[in-house]
Amino acid sequence: MSGWEREWFAASPVARLATVTPAGRPHVVPVVFAVQNDVVWMAVDGKPKRSRALQRLHNIAANPQVSLIVDHYDDDWTSLWWVRADGGARVVEQGSADEEAGLRLLVDRYPQYADQPPAGPVVAVGVDRWHGWRARDWLD
Amino acid sequence: MSGWEREWFAASPVARLATVTPAGRPHVVPVVFAVQNDVVWMAVDGKPKRSRALQRLHNIAANPQVSLIVDHYDDDWTSLWWVRADGGARVVEQGSADEEAGLRLLVDRYPQYADQPPAGPVVAVGVDRWHGWRARDWLD
Repeated sequence: MSGWEREWFAASPVARLATVTPAGRPHVVPVVFAVQNDVVWMAVDGKPKRSRALQRLHNIAANPQVSLIVDHYDDDWTSLWWVRADGGARVVEQGSADEEAGLRLLVDRYPQYADQPPAGPVVAVGVDRWHGWRARDWLD
Repeated sequence: MSGWEREWFAASPVARLATVTPAGRPHVVPVVFAVQNDVVWMAVDGKPKRSRALQRLHNIAANPQVSLIVDHYDDDWTSLWWVRADGGARVVEQGSADEEAGLRLLVDRYPQYADQPPAGPVVAVGVDRWHGWRARDWLD
């Protein structure tokens, strides 16, 4: 199911979450996250936003299919790589054991959450496919 | 139309391009790009790929609406920011003056292209909206 791809993805502090709006338009936003097995956890957190009724949650409710990407940029283009995780997202039930587990993973990973714990909701993405590209795999 | 958002977006070496597949699923990939006025230029370039019949081009042909994001991550979350550019994409006609102009912007911006010029096709995104978020705007 995954070799280097999942590991490299999981080690990045930030990913970008792409969803599709009910009108069929793409939407993309950076997210902090934690990976356990083939699940990517994220939360609507304390970083200030205009509203908790976020576009990403609205989109997931209408179309649970999401795509997440982590990439490494370097001026040396032989060092470039990226990993994409495609799967189905669900908003985790508030107060559930699942929510607690997801929040724990996030707080453990990001010391920043100690001061400002994520308020939720928590989103879990079940990854169907880890797909990666490394420039170095194509070098002679 | 744009304040700091376009400028900060344009200064980043990498963005992520979100499109929607004909089946209505999100797709996201990192891209190098150049901004001129409210147009984001990119090209299918010499970085090796399995095929030039790329998913992103297939998606744009079916649904030209795209979303591009640039973000800044830092362990100090008061430094976080991101800018999203939403708009309509088109594949530029091969051999046109537009294609030449777009390629020139890209080659001027990335010295890496000197050795490995982008082969095209060139894609131009007409940005309808530059939308940004900065953590610092929310600090007391």
